[in-house]
Amino acid sequence: MLGLMQEWPLLCHKIIDHAARQHPHREIVSRSIEGPIVRTNYAELRTRSLKVAQRLERDGYKTGDRIATLAWNSARHMEAWYGIMGMGAVYHTLNPRLFPEQLVWIMNHAQDQALFVDLTFVPLVEKIASQVPSLKRIIVLTDAAHLPQTTLPNVTAYEEWLAEADGDYAWKALDEHAAAGMCYTSGTTGDPKGVVYSHRSNVLHAMIAVMPDAMGISVRDVVMPVVPMFHANAWGLAQSTPMVGAKFVMPGGKMDGASIYEMLDTERVTFTAAVPTVWLMLLQHLEETGKKLPHLNKVVIGGSACPRTVTEKFERNYGVEVIHAWGMTEMSPLGTLCTIKPEYDDLEGNDRLNLQQKQGYTPFGVEMKITDDDNNELPWDGKTFGRLKVRGPAVSGSYFGGASAEQFDADDWFDTGDVAHIDINGYMQITDRSKDVIKSGGEWISSIELENLALGHPDVQEAAVIGVKHSRWDERPLMVVVRKPGREPEKADILAFLNGKVAKWWMPDDVAFVDEIPHTATGKIQKMALRERFKDYRLPSDTAG
Amino acid sequence: MLGLMQEWPLLCHKIIDHAARQHPHREIVSRSIEGPIVRTNYAELRTRSLKVAQRLERDGYKTGDRIATLAWNSARHMEAWYGIMGMGAVYHTLNPRLFPEQLVWIMNHAQDQALFVDLTFVPLVEKIASQVPSLKRIIVLTDAAHLPQTTLPNVTAYEEWLAEADGDYAWKALDEHAAAGMCYTSGTTGDPKGVVYSHRSNVLHAMIAVMPDAMGISVRDVVMPVVPMFHANAWGLAQSTPMVGAKFVMPGGKMDGASIYEMLDTERVTFTAAVPTVWLMLLQHLEETGKKLPHLNKVVIGGSACPRTVTEKFERNYGVEVIHAWGMTEMSPLGTLCTIKPEYDDLEGNDRLNLQQKQGYTPFGVEMKITDDDNNELPWDGKTFGRLKVRGPAVSGSYFGGASAEQFDADDWFDTGDVAHIDINGYMQITDRSKDVIKSGGEWISSIELENLALGHPDVQEAAVIGVKHSRWDERPLMVVVRKPGREPEKADILAFLNGKVAKWWMPDDVAFVDEIPHTATGKIQKMALRERFKDYRLPSDTAG
Ligand SMILES: Nc1ncnc2c1ncn2[C@@H]1O[C@H](COP(=O)(O)O)[C@@H](O)[C@H]1O
Repeated sequence: MLGLMQEWPLLCHKIIDHAARQHPHREIVSRSIEGPIVRTNYAELRTRSLKVAQRLERDGYKTGDRIATLAWNSARHMEAWYGIMGMGAVYHTLNPRLFPEQLVWIMNHAQDQALFVDLTFVPLVEKIASQVPSLKRIIVLTDAAHLPQTTLPNVTAYEEWLAEADGDYAWKALDEHAAAGMCYTSGTTGDPKGVVYSHRSNVLHAMIAVMPDAMGISVRDVVMPVVPMFHANAWGLAQSTPMVGAKFVMPGGKMDGASIYEMLDTERVTFTAAVPTVWLMLLQHLEETGKKLPHLNKVVIGGSACPRTVTEKFERNYGVEVIHAWGMTEMSPLGTLCTIKPEYDDLEGNDRLNLQQKQGYTPFGVEMKITDDDNNELPWDGKTFGRLKVRGPAVSGSYFGGASAEQFDADDWFDTGDVAHIDINGYMQITDRSKDVIKSGGEWISSIELENLALGHPDVQEAAVIGVKHSRWDERPLMVVVRKPGREPEKADILAFLNGKVAKWWMPDDVAFVDEIPHTATGKIQKMALRERFKDYRLPSDTAG
Repeated sequence: MLGLMQEWPLLCHKIIDHAARQHPHREIVSRSIEGPIVRTNYAELRTRSLKVAQRLERDGYKTGDRIATLAWNSARHMEAWYGIMGMGAVYHTLNPRLFPEQLVWIMNHAQDQALFVDLTFVPLVEKIASQVPSLKRIIVLTDAAHLPQTTLPNVTAYEEWLAEADGDYAWKALDEHAAAGMCYTSGTTGDPKGVVYSHRSNVLHAMIAVMPDAMGISVRDVVMPVVPMFHANAWGLAQSTPMVGAKFVMPGGKMDGASIYEMLDTERVTFTAAVPTVWLMLLQHLEETGKKLPHLNKVVIGGSACPRTVTEKFERNYGVEVIHAWGMTEMSPLGTLCTIKPEYDDLEGNDRLNLQQKQGYTPFGVEMKITDDDNNELPWDGKTFGRLKVRGPAVSGSYFGGASAEQFDADDWFDTGDVAHIDINGYMQITDRSKDVIKSGGEWISSIELENLALGHPDVQEAAVIGVKHSRWDERPLMVVVRKPGREPEKADILAFLNGKVAKWWMPDDVAFVDEIPHTATGKIQKMALRERFKDYRLPSDTAG
């Protein structure tokens, strides 16, 4: 027996329809690539998205075609997204921080048919476009007056291209399982893997994200995603914000402390989200200028572990609630958020900060478990760590083209590649990547935990711990450290600092000082490269042979 | 091209799984029918629900079977729901306030196979059970010690029946469109109509309900639905509360002011919901005793229009935020909620109260429009009223057995039978039922607006306005009034009070005083009965013939 409720497929354009109907005049503010701050609203954005859809269709694009975007967060980028999805095509966000050859590989793998690109990235596209034969048209997100001289063929200025449509268009009636968007994850090894979001997963993800104990966004908020739309969907904010009808602010390409502060302040932003590096820059700017954050209520921090001092400064010095969050491109991206359950109401000071170092717990719609290498579930005791596996309607079931099938269990659990423990109250903490965990005599040592501790040393700028071959223990930890400018800590200082803070057998066997630690395009430490560099390193403790 | 996200059907038992996993020890407190306050938690409730499912299956019940419940809000009732749904059967809530012959009709129409019943209602079931041949077993929600002497065959005490299962059961793998629950609406005319909820609609409805600008329930809340589970799913609270993992409090059968106050106070309830009559009783109790509501933050009031004085007293005297809401059994039931958009931030005092008289705006997942009789859309100007039509994933697409098909447009809009206007900011206000609107010379007069005005008269206890035949205008309004005890207002007093508050041609042509106005089982005025009673009434203004 089936229920007798309406067929109402979960389609992304229903989000923008809702926003335009219920919150037509709510502002959308962007720092434009051309320079000035520009303003639109949900009603206008919807009309322009309809034009995008209509214009794409007129250009001959079809349901299922991948249409790439290479752009900062702006209303134009968002219109392009809704227009692409609304005509049944698939937005494909490209990360401009990737190497040109990676972009070429990804675009060819996705078979991108057209590209919306910001002025900023025209030179980059000039280098690669000829290597992507599927690409039929390049639309520069600007007007004719700002269109630069370019060697690119088939280039149009967005505003002129759009002006040829009148917006008299009806969104495509699609299956909610139809593809809506696409994003490649740049793993530290192997080829990038394509994640394909569906309309359903995007809509459900937005509904999950707005829940009070997740991001908890209300129409009364002013939301600014500093996290780019090309980084895992801007964590869903371009969908969850119109879903609740809140004012939306987008920082364009300027992500330095002063520019972010300016947007936060002049637009009275109450809610924002980005990776830790952005907040380090903002906090430094605030400290240098003595400025405050009177409007901001909440900041979501994720993408990599949030340093304790960032949480501490936001909460103590500026009265801003920090929500540490964990997710992945494959999870649309939300996985867990560290909002406070009543169980932890009494935590104060350092104890509260300790809790906030955890990545938090899953909202409804995300399931997680930790297992050993044989897929046996491990207990939630806050100590035992294992492979973190997840399940949910906004979690990848496979990669585009079937890559890396071993990450998907038969029972549909996705192996995140992260290693974590989960405490008795359901709070998860990442302790490592499964590739990076150090296996010493059969036991696991968490590289991340050691790194975090080392960052507490006043002279340490950055630290990375890797496993180095050891004749007796298989692997032992080596700590690689970048010193703060002008500081000269010695190996013994670092080890003395760690001593007593971790189990004896976790103590690094050695410390190596370097000028720089290599990073991926999304700002993560490239441990592969480090391991390569130190592959012949002989630990002083390794007295054999 | 399809998205590549996981198949993760929206099934109701995933809600209780999530609650048990992430919030295992959060309390569920019920005032038991036997008397004492009893406590359980989400982990235990899930285990007992698994037993219900297992036990039902062992008794031979099958996927799609309707299993009725006739019970107050309690943990046992909730376990029964999750158990029934989790084995693929369909809970069917019966409203004990219906007449026995209506219950018999409904149970036969639904072909109920079993019945979970509270002690309170055993005498009622004794009267009707023999007339429902499909009924195979009656499970009284109590233990053997409390099981009364009864003439009913096939009766078991719930606790003994449950004890035969060990809970080693796996929820059924169901299609998310499978039926999960059923509820009949008792229209004022014709046979009751069966609404059939699906797993998908229940889950999506819960996700919509918890959104910050809808009910906005958080894990930090203590939620008490006073609205019964048999009244449109307790407005979804038995699903949205475990979804966020909040403490859940259920008042059992005691809904008088003192009992409700006791639960609010001792359990520190922060969020509650019920129809206006319950709150009138509570406010009276508070006024008589001088008690306050220090813990309560929000109260959702719906089911019928919320009297202005209720909103005023809650907000001004007790610091409790009132959310006026509108919905219907056919909408799972949420339609609109009157939370405050930034557009209305500056409203204070009476202006704010005026806004709160409106039923509010739709969250994402509910679409609404108003049309004239020919299905032409009417403007959102806050004045023009028309038929209110809705669409959404938790809105009925048809009734069980195909009844009343004319309420469903070809384009899937459901005609609510309500008449409303919608203002420029999307706030809807019910002005009438389409059956009750008074058509005077082709123009519509809202009976409800007149009734609300009359309630402002200090001597008026209740008022109902109906259309009475008029030889010149077709229909003209007659106001039927119940006076407050000991008060003796005259027709002229009432009319003078209304004068100037409505357009001249809306003024009732006459006032009739009665001792009592008839109500339906769910507390709504039975206008049909009133129209019947006054069908030969001759208005003084009707000078013809
Ligand atoms: N809050 C966090 N703490 C630690 N690692 C994180 C956090 N958020 C994301 N990550 C890491 O980033 C990965 C996802 O990368 P991406 O798909 O590029 O967003 C995760 O698998 C984690 O390894």
